[in-house]
Amino acid sequence: MEDMSSPNNETAATARETVVEIHSVCLPPKKTTFQKLKKRFGDVFFPDDPLERFRNQTWRNKVILGLQSLFPIFTWGSQYDLKLFRSDVISGLTIASLAIPQGISYAKLANLPPIVGLYSSFVPPLIYSVLGSSKHLAVGPVSIASLVMGSMLSESVSPTQDSILYLKLAFTSTFFAGLFQASLGLLRLGFVIDFLSKATLVGFTAGAAVIVSLQQLKGLLGIVHFTGKMQFVPVMSSVIHTRSEWSWETIVMGLGFLIILLTTRHISMRKPKLFWISAASPLASVVISTLLVYLIRDKTHAISFIGHLPKGVNPPSANMLSFSAAHLALAIKTGIITGILSLTEGIAVGRTFASLKNYQVNGNKEMMAIGFMNMAGSCTSCYVTTGSFSRSAVNVNAGAKTAVSNIVMASAVLVTLLFLMPLFYYTPNLILAAIILTAVIGLIDYQAAYKLYKVDKFDFFTCMCSFFGVLFVSVPLGLAIAVGVSVIKILLHVTRPNTLEFGNIPGTQIYQSLKRYREASRVPGFLILAVESPIYFANSTYLQERILRWTREAETRIKENNDRTLKCIILDMTAVSSIDTSGIEALFELRRRLEKQSLQLVLVNPVGSVMEKLHKSKIIESLGLSGLYLTVGEAVSDLSSTWKAHGQP
Amino acid sequence: MEDMSSPNNETAATARETVVEIHSVCLPPKKTTFQKLKKRFGDVFFPDDPLERFRNQTWRNKVILGLQSLFPIFTWGSQYDLKLFRSDVISGLTIASLAIPQGISYAKLANLPPIVGLYSSFVPPLIYSVLGSSKHLAVGPVSIASLVMGSMLSESVSPTQDSILYLKLAFTSTFFAGLFQASLGLLRLGFVIDFLSKATLVGFTAGAAVIVSLQQLKGLLGIVHFTGKMQFVPVMSSVIHTRSEWSWETIVMGLGFLIILLTTRHISMRKPKLFWISAASPLASVVISTLLVYLIRDKTHAISFIGHLPKGVNPPSANMLSFSAAHLALAIKTGIITGILSLTEGIAVGRTFASLKNYQVNGNKEMMAIGFMNMAGSCTSCYVTTGSFSRSAVNVNAGAKTAVSNIVMASAVLVTLLFLMPLFYYTPNLILAAIILTAVIGLIDYQAAYKLYKVDKFDFFTCMCSFFGVLFVSVPLGLAIAVGVSVIKILLHVTRPNTLEFGNIPGTQIYQSLKRYREASRVPGFLILAVESPIYFANSTYLQERILRWTREAETRIKENNDRTLKCIILDMTAVSSIDTSGIEALFELRRRLEKQSLQLVLVNPVGSVMEKLHKSKIIESLGLSGLYLTVGEAVSDLSSTWKAHGQP
Repeated sequence: MEDMSSPNNETAATARETVVEIHSVCLPPKKTTFQKLKKRFGDVFFPDDPLERFRNQTWRNKVILGLQSLFPIFTWGSQYDLKLFRSDVISGLTIASLAIPQGISYAKLANLPPIVGLYSSFVPPLIYSVLGSSKHLAVGPVSIASLVMGSMLSESVSPTQDSILYLKLAFTSTFFAGLFQASLGLLRLGFVIDFLSKATLVGFTAGAAVIVSLQQLKGLLGIVHFTGKMQFVPVMSSVIHTRSEWSWETIVMGLGFLIILLTTRHISMRKPKLFWISAASPLASVVISTLLVYLIRDKTHAISFIGHLPKGVNPPSANMLSFSAAHLALAIKTGIITGILSLTEGIAVGRTFASLKNYQVNGNKEMMAIGFMNMAGSCTSCYVTTGSFSRSAVNVNAGAKTAVSNIVMASAVLVTLLFLMPLFYYTPNLILAAIILTAVIGLIDYQAAYKLYKVDKFDFFTCMCSFFGVLFVSVPLGLAIAVGVSVIKILLHVTRPNTLEFGNIPGTQIYQSLKRYREASRVPGFLILAVESPIYFANSTYLQERILRWTREAETRIKENNDRTLKCIILDMTAVSSIDTSGIEALFELRRRLEKQSLQLVLVNPVGSVMEKLHKSKIIESLGLSGLYLTVGEAVSDLSSTWKAHGQP
Repeated sequence: MEDMSSPNNETAATARETVVEIHSVCLPPKKTTFQKLKKRFGDVFFPDDPLERFRNQTWRNKVILGLQSLFPIFTWGSQYDLKLFRSDVISGLTIASLAIPQGISYAKLANLPPIVGLYSSFVPPLIYSVLGSSKHLAVGPVSIASLVMGSMLSESVSPTQDSILYLKLAFTSTFFAGLFQASLGLLRLGFVIDFLSKATLVGFTAGAAVIVSLQQLKGLLGIVHFTGKMQFVPVMSSVIHTRSEWSWETIVMGLGFLIILLTTRHISMRKPKLFWISAASPLASVVISTLLVYLIRDKTHAISFIGHLPKGVNPPSANMLSFSAAHLALAIKTGIITGILSLTEGIAVGRTFASLKNYQVNGNKEMMAIGFMNMAGSCTSCYVTTGSFSRSAVNVNAGAKTAVSNIVMASAVLVTLLFLMPLFYYTPNLILAAIILTAVIGLIDYQAAYKLYKVDKFDFFTCMCSFFGVLFVSVPLGLAIAVGVSVIKILLHVTRPNTLEFGNIPGTQIYQSLKRYREASRVPGFLILAVESPIYFANSTYLQERILRWTREAETRIKENNDRTLKCIILDMTAVSSIDTSGIEALFELRRRLEKQSLQLVLVNPVGSVMEKLHKSKIIESLGLSGLYLTVGEAVSDLSSTWKAHGQP
């Protein structure tokens, strides 16, 4: 420290030396490979420690807790009273008035007979009310999963010409969707759905909503010969080429009801207390439009209507599950994709309202509940169902307290199925299109997209990939592209990690990025680098080269400024959360190369697992005692005083 | 701080308060999206800053530097002298004596005519000597790439029945391999080869070496009807089922030469100065065995030999490149896989010897050199070539100084092609098998595998996956499995990151893991957690849940011990190298949930990019001034003194 050209750092260093004592870097407590595997296994599969509640309990309590965790209905069932029931009846009837028209509409979206939509609003809610852990989820068919199933299956099988095969495939796909969902829950692989990021979902949902809306042009314009394709271009060209089929009666009536529905939706969004206006308007529109069509039935035939619907509860459909090789791959693929999409929606909706009402939903249990509900559904003529966002929101606003509201809704659907089906004979298709349009328009969350743009350009890019992928390529491919982009982002981040040069904030022991903290200054003789990523095979060569480049640049700068010569490279390893054998080899090689230039390599604060591997690979021993420090400050002051003692500049 | 039950922490805290002043956390300097993109782009594609050397140079110098960087031969060409030339001639002739028998053998491994192996040892070395940046790489056919090409092509096309088509496909694959390699270099996508980790390569190479060795049983046992398959099981069953074809003459002679070759190899490995013994022995064995077979040619026909080989230099083969749709996919696939494998080998070998002799090879330039050499090779009857490890090692030991040794070697091959081909007529196939066996046995690096086992069990697992995958499934699938396992490891690490509880090391401002540092102790009222990973969509939900679990556990512990109540959760964000919108949302949600339990959330030391996003998403503002600190120490002392001032316990 005889160099007098930098008096500031000199005093700072002296001040440090008086304060600092040196702490050695510990190895983590020793564990066997089995213990480590067990801990890692627990972290990956049981992060919520589900057996915690069972510890230190009597056998009787354990059985009760076990039953409660298998069937959440036991948790709240014993405290259920008339007051709760009243709330649940009101909310259950409210969502039923939404669920019945939406059920019929969404089934048409999936190219299925309308009645299947009602079947799907009866059995699954009943099962969910026993197994599910959310109190506010309103279960039934949803638009996205319906669209995806419809688009994937109708690519291979025509729903009009091969209607029986199509129905079989729909039930089989539903079975696989449920099996996949339940397996994810059972095997505790819930993190799979985490790979659908918010950004991906915003883009995907908006793209799907646009596609669903375009499909509704068929009903709203009264087109008879509509394309079977889903993408933007063929649908628009089909709409234009069938101009001759447009019917003005349908258009006028459709637009009228669409305006009514959109207005009521707008009112309810402005004043959440008036939720019942938008909740009641679909059923009201169905009733009014059906009456209208009935009255003018002899005047015009331009307005198409549903026609005959069978009466009665869900017929069993286990015999329709077909596992023959011919379409098995398609059914499995469709099942997995609709399964993962409906699961994501269901869990997101459940979490949203749980957080709003301050309770927890258990992701793995929800997966099992939704999975079993779909497997049971596939045997009782239901197609894929999950928790719907719009209906759950109405459920919460209508004061739902427990899953009993689902039971009430299912009962209302049962009454409809048993007695009211003939009333839907004259229900016009245009009203179903208007109901779907109103429901999916809310899925285009442009505000979320704008926020992504503001905060994270890459997330916005992912969002756009999935939006345009769904719109112009295909629904499953758009999703795959977006997930691929997200995964590549992770890999790219790992492949090309950040390295920062640190400097000392004068008068402190704090070392921070020179670029960010203007007051931070370099310590002569040292180059302090922080690596901001695990050191893996995928980045070890890069990091080695990058650190050598930092060194070259530092030496050029020192030569230009006639500064004190560089003697030591300090690597702050705080953010290096993991290392593998390639990384260790890169460190070895780096040290060898630096030594050839008579530079010392010092590691600071390696985390536990990294420290352990460094120790095992003997790099610690070869670095010697003066190559490892707990903090950058300690490294700088200790090395400076050593050099001083040896009379080096 | 009125609680007197923890006097130790009390004094420590008081001591801290006198020393610590609070530093605010800075935002990084503002940059536009374009600037950020440019920097990121530069980091990803130009980490070595290739234009650095051109800055502040005259135009003339820039041209010279440009030529030098395109053709490294200009860098050393002007200083080339007779002394260097003498060294290069000796080393060139030495590797030629290895390259000629190995060339013939490896071509047979790829199911190609032996002469193609010699062609491939003539043109590519010449091109590499002009373009390549390594001084010691000995270029020519190598065992792994030959094996992979042979196994992939012969799965679809029979090399004996469709020999012309097979040859066409081999040249076309070589062209695509070169195109792929050159594109990686041109587009600076060199990080793609980083995804073949050391662990994957150790396993893959060993597996391939075993497969290659098994293939040599055909030649060593004199089997005529050998299986066309590569995997362990069919090869072994074929060997056993063809017992009647085994020829004792072949076995005796083969084993004899194998023992000689292995012994000379062993001697050279023990005493590197005697490298010439193992370098000369293959050619010597070829000469001796050919003579032997020639002498006994009338006594026995049990020993098969090469037979007629055409004379003359490489015929042009551009007309044999076939881009017809029928086998295009196969050619591209084979090209990419052999391309990436040979590139990895070439660059690894180049880097190894460059580091030994203390110079740098430029990855991207090497890719272009190897790529152009293969593209040119495919038009001159050569198949995939790269730098061979064994021959490069001999090259270094024989004193090679520049790439001229490759030119000398090529000249020796040229003389062989022009004049010596008839001499190989009686060369027995068994000697080729023995040469290959000796060469590939060194590729089974069991010591590296043992080291992987000691240091990193997961890396060892990856290694075993690729070893057994190659051995029992197939060569490309084994590789794919190993790469997949490595990528899943990265993703799993990101999906389930570590969180650690920190404590204070008494008398210091250092906060470290409680598990690792016994002396570290909790600070009453605080729960200090460190997150060891970026916060991404893939882990945001997990981290949120995990932190809430830490909080629950801390509160249970406090209740049991009657400790001071928990008031503040400090998140040390030092190791959170990146965040996305899902991560930010998780932080918001976490804060909201903690607030409901009247707990304060404090963030410490977010890195630049994270800080920026936190700022943009307004979370910083909502945390307030007392929610963000530069170090854990400052956070603890500032919050403690605030509580004290407000008279809270």
